[in-house]
Amino acid sequence: MAQYTPPLRDMQFVMHEVLNVTDELKTLPPYADVDADTINAVIEEGGKFASQVIFPINLSGDQEGCTLDKTTHEVSPPKGFKEAYKTYVEGGWPALSCDPAYGGQGLPHLVNQCLYEMMNSGNQAWTMYPGLSHGAYEALHAHGTDEQKKTYLPKLTSGEWTGTMCLTEPHCGTDLGLLRTKAEPQADGTYKITGAKIFISAGEHDMTENIIHLVLARLPDAPVGSKGISLFVVPKFNVNADGSIGSRNPIFCTGLEHKMGIHGNATAQLTLDGAVGTLVGQPNKGLQAMFVMMNAARLGVGMQSLGLTEVAYQNAVAYAKDRLQMRALSGPKAPDKPADPIIVHPDVRKMLLTARAYAEGGRALGLWTTLQLDKELSSDDADVRKEAGDMVALITPIIKAFITDNAWISTSHCMQVFGGHGYIAEWGMEQYVRDARINMIYEGTNTVQSLDLLGRKILADNGAKLRKFGKMVQDFVEEEGTNEAMQEFINPLADLGEKVVKLTTEVGMKAFGNQDEVGAASVDYLRVVGHLVFGYFWARMAKVALEKQGGGDPFYKAKLATARFYFAKLLPETASLIRTARAGLPTLVEMEESWF
Amino acid sequence: MAQYTPPLRDMQFVMHEVLNVTDELKTLPPYADVDADTINAVIEEGGKFASQVIFPINLSGDQEGCTLDKTTHEVSPPKGFKEAYKTYVEGGWPALSCDPAYGGQGLPHLVNQCLYEMMNSGNQAWTMYPGLSHGAYEALHAHGTDEQKKTYLPKLTSGEWTGTMCLTEPHCGTDLGLLRTKAEPQADGTYKITGAKIFISAGEHDMTENIIHLVLARLPDAPVGSKGISLFVVPKFNVNADGSIGSRNPIFCTGLEHKMGIHGNATAQLTLDGAVGTLVGQPNKGLQAMFVMMNAARLGVGMQSLGLTEVAYQNAVAYAKDRLQMRALSGPKAPDKPADPIIVHPDVRKMLLTARAYAEGGRALGLWTTLQLDKELSSDDADVRKEAGDMVALITPIIKAFITDNAWISTSHCMQVFGGHGYIAEWGMEQYVRDARINMIYEGTNTVQSLDLLGRKILADNGAKLRKFGKMVQDFVEEEGTNEAMQEFINPLADLGEKVVKLTTEVGMKAFGNQDEVGAASVDYLRVVGHLVFGYFWARMAKVALEKQGGGDPFYKAKLATARFYFAKLLPETASLIRTARAGLPTLVEMEESWF
Repeated sequence: MAQYTPPLRDMQFVMHEVLNVTDELKTLPPYADVDADTINAVIEEGGKFASQVIFPINLSGDQEGCTLDKTTHEVSPPKGFKEAYKTYVEGGWPALSCDPAYGGQGLPHLVNQCLYEMMNSGNQAWTMYPGLSHGAYEALHAHGTDEQKKTYLPKLTSGEWTGTMCLTEPHCGTDLGLLRTKAEPQADGTYKITGAKIFISAGEHDMTENIIHLVLARLPDAPVGSKGISLFVVPKFNVNADGSIGSRNPIFCTGLEHKMGIHGNATAQLTLDGAVGTLVGQPNKGLQAMFVMMNAARLGVGMQSLGLTEVAYQNAVAYAKDRLQMRALSGPKAPDKPADPIIVHPDVRKMLLTARAYAEGGRALGLWTTLQLDKELSSDDADVRKEAGDMVALITPIIKAFITDNAWISTSHCMQVFGGHGYIAEWGMEQYVRDARINMIYEGTNTVQSLDLLGRKILADNGAKLRKFGKMVQDFVEEEGTNEAMQEFINPLADLGEKVVKLTTEVGMKAFGNQDEVGAASVDYLRVVGHLVFGYFWARMAKVALEKQGGGDPFYKAKLATARFYFAKLLPETASLIRTARAGLPTLVEMEESWF
Repeated sequence: MAQYTPPLRDMQFVMHEVLNVTDELKTLPPYADVDADTINAVIEEGGKFASQVIFPINLSGDQEGCTLDKTTHEVSPPKGFKEAYKTYVEGGWPALSCDPAYGGQGLPHLVNQCLYEMMNSGNQAWTMYPGLSHGAYEALHAHGTDEQKKTYLPKLTSGEWTGTMCLTEPHCGTDLGLLRTKAEPQADGTYKITGAKIFISAGEHDMTENIIHLVLARLPDAPVGSKGISLFVVPKFNVNADGSIGSRNPIFCTGLEHKMGIHGNATAQLTLDGAVGTLVGQPNKGLQAMFVMMNAARLGVGMQSLGLTEVAYQNAVAYAKDRLQMRALSGPKAPDKPADPIIVHPDVRKMLLTARAYAEGGRALGLWTTLQLDKELSSDDADVRKEAGDMVALITPIIKAFITDNAWISTSHCMQVFGGHGYIAEWGMEQYVRDARINMIYEGTNTVQSLDLLGRKILADNGAKLRKFGKMVQDFVEEEGTNEAMQEFINPLADLGEKVVKLTTEVGMKAFGNQDEVGAASVDYLRVVGHLVFGYFWARMAKVALEKQGGGDPFYKAKLATARFYFAKLLPETASLIRTARAGLPTLVEMEESWF
């Protein structure tokens, strides 16, 4: 019943008309030859895979879930998942933005980002299997030995094997410093790893012949806390010297979690009983190595929520046009029908436009940030790399937290458009809400993201990164300062920019007195900065749409209308958020613990 | 693993220390003898039922769900539900606030309200079985013939039979004017009813020997639209003249919905195939009769969400005190432990306090409104009845929409406190979120509530009812005007009161030009008025707490701290809501339907 059409036109608009990505890619040696036609052709094919292969098994995958055979410890994902993965591998999709040195296609991450948005619209639970692999690939590519790279990267690139990230233990999630899994060095240079991991996404399945686990554990002499954690690669099956599959490594799935959503993904409890692993990177520096995966994963989580927002929006629009119920308060709009389609009702439109504005804003921000990532990783100019890296660091927690919070709001609105039918599984809407909920939690809760943004990314460098972004906003405001038609966008943007500067200074000053002031303001603060960033991209998109709307293409008129909606109905949330951020710590600490 | 302690102390605080309900009840003839001891004793026992009988089968009920036997059309609720219902009936709980003329205990609705809050904390899905019955009881009590009352009310009062409300059909929910179920008059004065109903809560089960369906249908000569709908009582089993159970009436459960939550309640598709019914009230006036049930049900839905907020809060607090993870940013608070309990983190406290402030505010508003309901139904002074009835009418959509939206926010926050564990079914938190979601939809979506509030309850009488409430707020502000300690509460309350007046006038003026302006503002407007109402009760609670906090009872200190949190962190949401309400219709209608 549900439907999904890949938003190719909007991706192309952002990439080619707003960001002019091919000009930017020309400056990056590995991508100098990537032209718009190539990008467009790849995302069009990617859209077919997302909408035709994995979207049709999304609802059934949610209903069926994964099955663990407790005797063999093997896990079967829902029907069709294995076959879809085979199609994915045959299409060469895992290799899209991988290093050609290991068999990759060497396309920019930008293209992969488009693919992932669409795959997440199609089926988030399925997409997590290759998604986690990609994180393992990145960590090994950045920190692995030559031997490890040679052994694992070609197989991860081709998709013949998948990978995981094994961080969480029952007593520690956010606070990895508490972790207890042990790694005992062996005479041959390997380690025997013993412990219990939980919440391991894509942790076990039968879709590939091997699974490459990246596992955090402690060496025997490791310092306590987060400075005593090392990273190991622990394959499900040991790999022989010739690359063939060897003996089963004792890392077993001993349970699957029953979750609110993402039922199609196997969230595994893994028991390691002397599993053989090799060290990745330096001893006791595992967290740093893991952060390579984690930052990629945080951008990935934002894209999961972007995908859900888009597909929920499309379905809610279709329903709102189709469902006849009541008349418009201002009089019948479809007098020939027994009632008006509910899209005539202003609040239904408000719910739809909220999802649309958050989807399109998130897409613009996501693609811009991925372009910065490509620059950070591939420019031959150190200044460009530094500049782009700063932007990626600043924006990553915003993408993770702001886009996932927005998706929670948006998918819930889209479900509400369906009335009672939204609550019924067969329509597919409530699944989007349930799936969207995990994105606010994993890869660092949204509170953790907000502390990362305000504490680490902004206050710790005295606002230098934020000023760089602010400079870009200010330049745009000045450029458009004499453009009468842009005032409705530029004025609130400039105003919010000033308020962010003031708020940052104020919270920073308070934090000198008490560091807990950071935690008291950070969640509200992140949403305020999120709106500044979205506001900037919405203003840039509005500028292009204003220039082109005369041509009669309704695409530009819709873009402009959505931009106006964003500034009138969503960005004003900042008025309250600034107040509550400024209210700070006092009313949060007046309650003694025993009074709760 | 989950826990629940009935909030008896807080209920007593609201009833006896803030609202002085026994003084008020003394003025109402049927309740003149109801004293505080009686109320306290009843709610204490009710709390035991909620926490000891139905709470333990909440999680299992969610996991098991209901089962339909497709050949017999019989439905089995989850294990333990039938036995719990037997205990409920044996305890005399169904009769609590029912009319003594039909075997009721004749206690005020106020006491029943406390019971229902606690039962919903214990198990919303289970509580819907008796809850729907109560609606059927009210409709028959108000509109039934003597014969119908004699036949059905004693059995509904004792709980031997349950009842349902059959409104929705596949093509119509909000817009009941479209309904198609037909009622053919028979020679004996009965009707044969044929049609299909969906979303019938508690629509079929084996917990009682009979189920009394109240069914909306059309007479053959009925006018089209909502003025051609009649109400019928259609028992599952026909009732013989001597009151004994007769033949099976052809109203069969032909399907159960697969829902996001409330799995323990049977949401039935009912097929009526010439089922015998009798008319309730006047022909073609069924909607008015049904509204008696619907208004009671809307208050009831608010109480469902209040119950979920309270129980989610209690569990999140317990987890936040227990879970050790990271150190406070301002330095270790539990240096003897490997990490601090997460309740030290400001944002965790913010999430907990949000749920607490919404629960306690909702309880105060719910109990005050139910007291007004008791006055409306039982005063011997017509002016008092009118005045109280106006307040119930004004506040009902606020209780339905504001409290259910707040519960969605609160249960989601409480789940977030659990991190990844919140997403796992065994902890019980994600169920609260899923269960809470339906409350924003059924008994009129929250958008419909907002239109009812702004359009029907406020603009249609030129703000008369709102002014009555406003007068009460203003009187309180003036009374406390010289009380220095109350300024922190009184000032923002007075300020918000003035803004509501201005906003109401502005939207009312715009609506003269275009009625769609009502729909463009109403959802934001309802939340603004919701905060005014909550702010008023929080200020009144703060006043009592200020007076009594010197006694050293931490209850009052906690109340005061929560009041301060409410005014600092939640009420300021109105700053944004007023802006977006004022932004009105233009950006909602600029998008042409085809551009979506």
